[in-house]
Amino acid sequence: MRGIRGAVATFAFVLSVVGVVRAADAPAGPPPEAWRDVDPENLVLIDNKYGQIAIELAPWAAPEHVKRFKALVRAHFYDGLSFYRVIDGFVAQFGIGEGTAATAARPITPEVKAAWPALKAEFELPITTTPKYSALGSPDLFVTEPGHIDGFPVGRDPQTHTQWMVNCYGTIGFARDEDADTAATEVYVVIGQAPHREDRNISMIGRVIAGMQYLQKLERGDPAVESGVIQDAARQDKITRAVIAADLPAGERPHYQVIRTESPTFAQQREERRVLTNPWFHHHPPEVLDLCLMPVAVRKL
Amino acid sequence: MRGIRGAVATFAFVLSVVGVVRAADAPAGPPPEAWRDVDPENLVLIDNKYGQIAIELAPWAAPEHVKRFKALVRAHFYDGLSFYRVIDGFVAQFGIGEGTAATAARPITPEVKAAWPALKAEFELPITTTPKYSALGSPDLFVTEPGHIDGFPVGRDPQTHTQWMVNCYGTIGFARDEDADTAATEVYVVIGQAPHREDRNISMIGRVIAGMQYLQKLERGDPAVESGVIQDAARQDKITRAVIAADLPAGERPHYQVIRTESPTFAQQREERRVLTNPWFHHHPPEVLDLCLMPVAVRKL
Repeated sequence: MRGIRGAVATFAFVLSVVGVVRAADAPAGPPPEAWRDVDPENLVLIDNKYGQIAIELAPWAAPEHVKRFKALVRAHFYDGLSFYRVIDGFVAQFGIGEGTAATAARPITPEVKAAWPALKAEFELPITTTPKYSALGSPDLFVTEPGHIDGFPVGRDPQTHTQWMVNCYGTIGFARDEDADTAATEVYVVIGQAPHREDRNISMIGRVIAGMQYLQKLERGDPAVESGVIQDAARQDKITRAVIAADLPAGERPHYQVIRTESPTFAQQREERRVLTNPWFHHHPPEVLDLCLMPVAVRKL
Repeated sequence: MRGIRGAVATFAFVLSVVGVVRAADAPAGPPPEAWRDVDPENLVLIDNKYGQIAIELAPWAAPEHVKRFKALVRAHFYDGLSFYRVIDGFVAQFGIGEGTAATAARPITPEVKAAWPALKAEFELPITTTPKYSALGSPDLFVTEPGHIDGFPVGRDPQTHTQWMVNCYGTIGFARDEDADTAATEVYVVIGQAPHREDRNISMIGRVIAGMQYLQKLERGDPAVESGVIQDAARQDKITRAVIAADLPAGERPHYQVIRTESPTFAQQREERRVLTNPWFHHHPPEVLDLCLMPVAVRKL
């Protein structure tokens, strides 16, 4: 295969999960109508010293939490705060880090607490008007009806008639305390194997569409010490800036597109991934799809 | 829970996958007999500029490939070579990078090829004497009989009576070309969601037991360009040194222990993870286990 022994050949047909379009997978490329522009109102850009992380928000999944996150960004709440809890293979969490080593030198004021009161949980929502839902077709250990809405990984339960965003590599949710209605300002990104046990237990707000590698470069905490909170504040990586793309001058807004997961193009990509014809595979895997391994293509124009 | 709203509380009971022991999960700690020393002959240490990665090898999984990897390390083959193909959320591959941009300035000599000829595939092996195998009990989309041997994630097929190491976060295998018997020197580590489609298609040699964060810091390639090979050699992160612990003076050898996955202690950890009693979970997840999410504790003495 391409005459490159033991190098590029391995896995050459596999897209990364938070991926870009590869010519080999679609020689002609998806047609223009298969792409959807990311709304600058739902595009959050977070800079750290390694690079820029682009997040697309999903208001349908947790409307009040998305509203809160945007308000926090617009209030410059996160600027200068840290990724204070980073557990390798699991999550990167940012915000104030209330009551942890992260804020030993910067206690939370009553004013801050009053300004951002705890929200009611939005773990799952009724299936109502969701014309864009597309089914994956492979029930797994945790999700009876996996699928996508606007590129976000989704689970549905036919018994409760609810749907929710599933925890996958790159998805984002609000951290909370033991009680359900306790999320206020702290946010995490999944940076490892999909933690599906937490599905329907978190108000999920979006997913990283570019820059996961700049989260992977973050300094890690020790899971054995305060559940991964980095004890030495000087070691915590900072958020240089968080901004909503719509608030940037038009010329400075990055233009992202995501493949339409309700399109015939994506249906075809799903089928090509489910039934592998690549001769690299000597053992033919089961003809199934893992929701969190199904790439949803993103491009930056 | 611990009075820390929206911060440490979230996911506080979850171990990282390549994890360490948390006091909260085992207040008294596992008994001494539940721990197994990692044999210094099977412990490979790889240094890059970010830190040290510790790998435990699994000779039972692919004996000839493990032998080859150890010979390569002992020949100082990898010293100074690069992580030349790094795809975020997928794999970090190192070695020569034959025929790629990685070696444009350093072509492979016929001598090197002759010294390390291609190996016969060891994708799966007969189930023979494996007293240490312990079943996970939750068949998933890809693996009929998942379990562990010596801490390594394993699949078994009752029809073929074979077993193999499964691709999980941190597992390591030999890259190859389209033909099965083509692996020679190139090695990859999984750095994202478990790519189970590749199970039984790769000769797997071990897993990272410490230092995954130093692989996550690696510079990334663009999956759209030469399948993730970093084109600018100056951007590729180097292997400073690769060494087998047994070859170090006794005083310099790190002493790692891994929980015995055939022990009653691990059986109990499995059960505690399968049936969650933590009140943090408002939606009770299905009582199943994802092989690649089941933590196998490691400690450094």
